[in-house]
Formats: sequence, C-alpha cells, structure tokens
Amino acid sequence: MPESWVNLAERIGSDLHVDLSGPGSRRAVLIRALRDAVRDGRLAPGTRLPPYRSLAADLGLARNTVADAYAELVAEGWLTARQGSGTRVAERAAAPRRSRVPKRAPARSAAPAHNLRQGQPDAASFPRTAWLAAARRALGAAPNEAFGPGDPRGRIELREALADYLTRARGVRADPERIVVCSGFAHALRLLFDGARGAGGGVLRGPSPSSRPRSSRGYPIAVESYGLGFHREILESAGVRTVPLGLDEQGARIEELGAGPRVRGVLLTPAHQFPTGGPLHPARRAAVVDWARTHGGLVLEDDYDGEFRYDREPVGAVQGLDPEHVVYLGSVSKSLSPAVRIGWMVLPEQLVDGVLAAKGEREAWASVLDQLTLADFLASGQYDRHVRRMRQRYRSRRDRLVAALAERAPHITATGIAAGLHAVLRLPRGTEASVVKAAAWQGIALDGLSAFRHPGATMPATDGLVVGYSTPAEHAYGAAVDALCRALPPGDRDHQREQGK
Amino acid sequence: MPESWVNLAERIGSDLHVDLSGPGSRRAVLIRALRDAVRDGRLAPGTRLPPYRSLAADLGLARNTVADAYAELVAEGWLTARQGSGTRVAERAAAPRRSRVPKRAPARSAAPAHNLRQGQPDAASFPRTAWLAAARRALGAAPNEAFGPGDPRGRIELREALADYLTRARGVRADPERIVVCSGFAHALRLLFDGARGAGGGVLRGPSPSSRPRSSRGYPIAVESYGLGFHREILESAGVRTVPLGLDEQGARIEELGAGPRVRGVLLTPAHQFPTGGPLHPARRAAVVDWARTHGGLVLEDDYDGEFRYDREPVGAVQGLDPEHVVYLGSVSKSLSPAVRIGWMVLPEQLVDGVLAAKGEREAWASVLDQLTLADFLASGQYDRHVRRMRQRYRSRRDRLVAALAERAPHITATGIAAGLHAVLRLPRGTEASVVKAAAWQGIALDGLSAFRHPGATMPATDGLVVGYSTPAEHAYGAAVDALCRALPPGDRDHQREQGK
Repeated sequence: MPESWVNLAERIGSDLHVDLSGPGSRRAVLIRALRDAVRDGRLAPGTRLPPYRSLAADLGLARNTVADAYAELVAEGWLTARQGSGTRVAERAAAPRRSRVPKRAPARSAAPAHNLRQGQPDAASFPRTAWLAAARRALGAAPNEAFGPGDPRGRIELREALADYLTRARGVRADPERIVVCSGFAHALRLLFDGARGAGGGVLRGPSPSSRPRSSRGYPIAVESYGLGFHREILESAGVRTVPLGLDEQGARIEELGAGPRVRGVLLTPAHQFPTGGPLHPARRAAVVDWARTHGGLVLEDDYDGEFRYDREPVGAVQGLDPEHVVYLGSVSKSLSPAVRIGWMVLPEQLVDGVLAAKGEREAWASVLDQLTLADFLASGQYDRHVRRMRQRYRSRRDRLVAALAERAPHITATGIAAGLHAVLRLPRGTEASVVKAAAWQGIALDGLSAFRHPGATMPATDGLVVGYSTPAEHAYGAAVDALCRALPPGDRDHQREQGK
Repeated sequence: MPESWVNLAERIGSDLHVDLSGPGSRRAVLIRALRDAVRDGRLAPGTRLPPYRSLAADLGLARNTVADAYAELVAEGWLTARQGSGTRVAERAAAPRRSRVPKRAPARSAAPAHNLRQGQPDAASFPRTAWLAAARRALGAAPNEAFGPGDPRGRIELREALADYLTRARGVRADPERIVVCSGFAHALRLLFDGARGAGGGVLRGPSPSSRPRSSRGYPIAVESYGLGFHREILESAGVRTVPLGLDEQGARIEELGAGPRVRGVLLTPAHQFPTGGPLHPARRAAVVDWARTHGGLVLEDDYDGEFRYDREPVGAVQGLDPEHVVYLGSVSKSLSPAVRIGWMVLPEQLVDGVLAAKGEREAWASVLDQLTLADFLASGQYDRHVRRMRQRYRSRRDRLVAALAERAPHITATGIAAGLHAVLRLPRGTEASVVKAAAWQGIALDGLSAFRHPGATMPATDGLVVGYSTPAEHAYGAAVDALCRALPPGDRDHQREQGK
C-alpha cells in the first residue's frame, strides 16, 4: 500500500483508505476519495466524520483544505453538517447495486470483408484538406453574430450558395428565401410530417389528426414500390400511411395516383429511381406536376444522387417545372459524406412558414460552422471539383463492375442508367435469396432488391442485387468485385432460358 | 438590345429573345433561355419549335448544340418530341402565377441597441483560432470510417473526452457507454419524450400513450415554477403535461413531488436555478434522489451553465449521487456557442437502449466534424482554457453590474449566487411590466421574471428582471449597463418601504 494512503478506520470506525497521491489539488483528491467512499458504501449513511481539524492533522493537510472538502461534499449532498451533530454521511435510501454497462457492439456489426452495401460514398475520399481550407476562410470571414443564436432557415451564406449551385447544376428554381437547411433527408421528412414536434404540428398532416386512431390520420403519401424502408418508417412513425406506386420502364406509374385512395403527396426519386436505377420518363415528369396542380397535391423530389450521371449531363430537377408543387430535397450525404450533417429543402412558398414553425426558432440543428464551411466550399468551386473527381472515380468503378460481369458472368447485367453510387444486377428468377447468402459466404455485405420492396407493392417482384460500388476504399474495390463475381450463379443454358422468358 | 439576342418570333410565332451571351457553355445558355421562356409563358404549351437545324443556323450554333439542348429539355419535361409532330412545348395544366417570395425578417427582430436577453454567450468571444487548430488536428487524425455512417451514440473520441471532462469538472459519473451525443438540450428532451419519432416511441412516455387523448397521456413531469417556456413547450408538444414545483430560498420544493398527482420525472436546474439563480440546497439534492429511488422516478438535471460560478468552485452534479436515477444533460451552447450544435446526455443504464432506438441507427444528427473537433478541444485543454477565460470575463461583467447598481440604484439588488450568464434584479412589487417597458424605451431587450413563470404556478409571483450580462460584446457592455440603470425605477422612500414589507 503506498505511503500516501491513510487509514481512517480508527477515526470513523470504517476501513477507509484515502489515497492522496492522485492527480489534481489535495482538496480535489480528498473530495474524490470521500465521495467514492460514500458512493460505494465504505462510508455508511449516518457515519460521523472526524472534525476537520483532526482529519487535517492525520492527513498532513491544511485545515482549510479539509474544511473546504467537507463543505463541497455537503453542498453536493454527500454529507450533512448540523450544529451539534458534526459532519455525517447523508442518510439516503439504499443505493442500487452499481451495474457495469456492458460494452455495446458498434451500431454496424463488424465490418465485412467486402462492403457493397448501397448508400455510402467512399469515406476515404473525403476532401479533408480542401474542407479545412474552406473552414479557415469561412470562420475567418464570419461575422460575430454567426456564433449567436441561429436562423432556423440556416445561414444566409449557405442558402445563397445553394441557390446558385442548385440553379446551375440541377435546374432547381431556388430562391434563398425558400431554402431551409436541415441535418439531412430524414430530418427534412420529419419536419414535413412529424406532427408531434414544434408548433407546426406536421406541415403535411391531414386536418386535426391527433384525435384519430393512427391508421386513418391524414391522407396517405404515395411512394415508389421500391425504395428505402427507412423513409417509409419515418412517415409511418409520424402516422402517415404510405401507398406503393408501381414502377415500369418509364419509372413510377404516375397514372396510379388518381386511381386509388386520395393521396396528399408523392415521394419520388426522378433523376435516378432508387434503387432500380431508371430516370423518370419526361411524360411522367409532366404528368406528376399536372397531378399535383389538379389535385392540390405535393411532389417530394428526393434528389439523392442527382450529381452523379456518367453517360450524359444530369437531367434537371422536376422542381424546375413547378416550384409551387414540388419540394426539392437534397443533402451532402452522398456527394461529400454523411458525417457532414447538412441537407436542404427548397419549398413551395406556402410551406415555408409551416416548416419554419415545425423547425422552431430556437433550434438551428445543423452546425453553423459546417454551414459556413459548406457555403465557402460551394462558392469557391471546391464542391464542383470534388463532385467531378468522385464522378470519375465512381464511373470507373461502375465500368469495372460492368466489364467484370461481361467477362465472368455475361448472363448477368447491370440495369438502370449509368449513374449514382450503386448498380442493380438482375438475377434469374427465384435466385436472389441464395445469391445474397452466397455473397455473405464470400464475405460480401450487400442487399437484394427485395429488401427495398414496399410491403404493400403489387407489381411483380424482380430478383436482383443492389451493389453499392462507392462504398469500398479504392484499393479494396477490385477484390470486392472479384468476390462478387464468384458469388453469382453460373450462367448455364437453363438460367439463360429462364431469363429469356 | 445586345447583338447576341436573337428573336425567334418569326420561327415560332412568339416574341422570344434568346440571349446567348450569358455565362456557361452555349448549350447551357440555350437550355436556360428556352426553359425560362417555357416557364414564364413566352413559349406557350403546344408551340412547335423550329427544327434544330434551322434554329442552329439562325443562332449561329453547331447543330449538335441545339439538338442536345432540345434533348435535355425533353428529358426534363419542358418539351415533347414525337415522330412526325416535331418538338413542341409540353402541354400542362396552366402554371400558377409565379409569386415572388417576400423577404422574411430575420428570425430575431432587428437587433436592439442593447441586448440583455439571457441565454447567449458572448458571440464575439468564440475561440476561432483555437477551434480551427483543433479541427485541423482532429480531421488529420480521424480514421476514414469517421466519414462513413455514424454511431448514433456519437463519436467514441468525443464520448471519451466528455466522460473525462464531466467526471473531473462536474462530478458526473460518466461512462462513455452511457453518453449519447445530440445536437443540444432540446434534441435531448425530444429523444426522451417525443413518442412520434423512431422506434423508441418516446423513452419516458407513459404506457401505450398513442391511443389516449393528449391530456391524459403518460404521467406528468414536474418542472420548476420558473424556467424556460421553450422546454415546457417541447414536453407539451410531445403530449407530456408539466406540473410546477414551488421554489423557495433552498430551491425547488422537492417535498411537493410526493403530494400532487403521480409524476414520472422532474426537470431541475440544481447548480443554478434558472432563472431565479439559487443552487439546490444539499438536503433537497438528497431528497430528490431519494424520491426517485423510492418512486421509480427520474431526475433530469439540466446543467446549462454549471461551469460558471464566481464565488467558489462549482458544486458537482446531482447525477453523481445516483447515476441510475438521474439523466445529466449538458451542451456547449452556453460555454462555447449555440452555433456548435452539440449536447449530451449521461443516461441511466436502463434508458440507453431506448434513447438509441429513438435516435435511430441512421441519424447521427450532430456533425461528426464538430464532434471530432470538440473531442480534441476538450482533450487538449483548450476547452478548460476557454471556460476559464469566459469565467473571468463574465465574473467581471457581473461585478460591474453589481457595482453600477450599488452606486446608481442601491435599492435594487442582484439576487441569486454569483454564477452563470445572467443575474436577476429584484424589483418593487407591481413594477416589472413598467420597468421592462422603460427598458425597451432605452433600447434594451430583456425579459421580466414573469416571462419564465409556469402558467400553473401557485407560488407567489416576484417582480424582477432577468439580465443576460453575457450577451453584449465586450465594448458594448458598459453602455448597456448604463442604459439599464436609467430604466430602473427611482429609489424613493415609498419604494424602499414597499420592498421592506
């Protein structure tokens, strides 16, 4: 036992050792030691502590130090001091047994050998140097008020830079006054639909929904028959029912909007249907805007990877056709990194006030520092540069995938347009589950198409793999494609015949 | 009209001028010009466009350029191309009149001459240089996976740095596994209470709340009779009723918790009651933990300005007394800036999984870049240094306020402990509203105590001003105090008698 330990047993009838050699002032060390002793029961409730003068003498400390420590512990509620009764350990109900929190597994389970899950940009490509340079410029130029309470719409610097960029690159009609910055697509959906938050009461909820049973709240929202279950869950947890629209070779079947139950809005991925990969046909683009105008409906345009098209210039946003009936939604999660929690909505005028009310005056949510940095990153052309660089990289990855398939599995082809961060490989009917399993055996993490199917979808199911070719680091990509090819079913005549049916 | 303008009137029977001198490629300029013309009706639906060859000749452009532009606008849905019918402007329901969005006033109305509203740190003091240096170190050291999908608990680097800091500086028992990073105090409250979000269904809601009318959902939460209305609103918008606890010279009257309707939890500001300014008495600290243990209740400890105490070392957090019954809540909004959207909860073990489920695997919310930077800022000692600097600054501001009152309005005193970012000035009974009005006449923005009173509070009301002395910039503070003294009521004998009652 170190010399600095002092046994208080005689003084207080308790086997208490105090180690005064720890870091920090003597006062702090004594406080910590006494607190720990009370906490874990070595100093029992009601125990009378020695007068501070005696303890100071025992410990070789200044009297003030011990008196201060007692006073602190009295103030914190560990000890009580009463005239005539001295200083005692506070009486309290018995402390519960302290349980050690088990170490939790990380949110994602252990990394697979080859991660081909869709949805993530190459994390190794985050432009750290350029981002830091932008941060330095932005923080240097920011007015002091930027560090005060935030505008719920987001920083004006960012909204102006976004308006320029979205107009130029995505054909969006983007007035800074109609842009609301948020922390990502999911946050945007919640602001639009989640009635329980803020004064807005859910901008797009049906009338007076709170008193109705969940199933009949408001009007349903139409979604594509294949899409992210995560988005459907957000809507459903806000009490909004989703109804599936069929998909065909022209994209979402807009004509179904008029047929079923009355829907209030439709969530689409027009530039690049997620995950099946086609663009929305021009006629359908026009039709959905017509539908919205005629029925007072709203189009939610999820432009999740609109910058990434490899065969031609990206098609502009549907929002440009009618900004009063389309909410344009984007984020940097695919183009830069989901670690930068910034997304945006370009809103019809009639929704701006409601969304701001739902967001609340008091919460800016997205980091102002990141907002200022992104504004500089956009305005300085660094964002374009980064997107160009990643476009080349992803395009080459897609080409490598297609070439590998042509050579090693010519019966399997990538469908959809040359765009985005993922490809869909069509599989022979009935084989998807076994191929996903075979891929897992090869150490590959990826999802089959069925993982994205709306539970209520009525269109015929298709077997396929959703291959996120942007996820692996550059050096790991070749091995991942190699493993994938090994997991694909053999291309015998039977399979080819089946495909031809 | 510039030479570059071409009138397409003859070709298409419409007075269309195309300005080809704008920025960008010829193709991009042509696309924009045609899109604009369709959009604002100069090119009416059904109008047949000239064949691309003729238009190219008219405009002096390559044929490919015009053909590409037509193809783009067809893909975007502005034009239609049908065999035999040529290229026409798409038929659509009439576009609504485009309304210009009115410029909105900024979220806060025009800055007052002297802003003495509580709740904001001095925005001019944000440590830009030190923060950028930390960002540089943090981004340089971060592993690539930091730029991938986030852990819903927050980055481990930050949780570890917070655990060290909170243990050391605030007496919190903080295991990194029990810390959940969020974007601020309001986000934390929503994660705990807002049943509509995520799978958690509101961690602290009563059983099966969704089918009940709002008023009877779950158990109420007790709050202090004076506090932030904003916090009450968050609870109430989540369907949680709040019941006020009285305050006396020892702080919140914990004994009332057992008396009224059964409450599930209590939200307290133990270190520095907001806004009245006293600490929670040691006996009350022990009593609230006892109550929580006995009744299975939960204490929510809002440690909003615990670092700022000027007369002594800060009293440690109540959470240290019993981490299984206290949720410790903090953020950098007062210590650094609300522009850094980072807060944290230290949770009882039984709540960790529920909060993570409510937060959702897919949303990290707080910027990962800021999280990494703050982790470095804490671990490198920069955070302590900044807090020390601000403590001196705010202490001196509080001293200047107290000295000015002693000299110019000796009948008015600052109550509460020497701590935090605001002071409360007690006013003669019945004068608060007129003094707030007089202050507004002096160009001062501040609130009276009554602005913070729970609508259901039954304790006697007190007249007072809540003076946020941290808000003005350093150079503006003297003038603000000066203006405040001018707005205070005169200290004649009548007033003194009334105070003495």
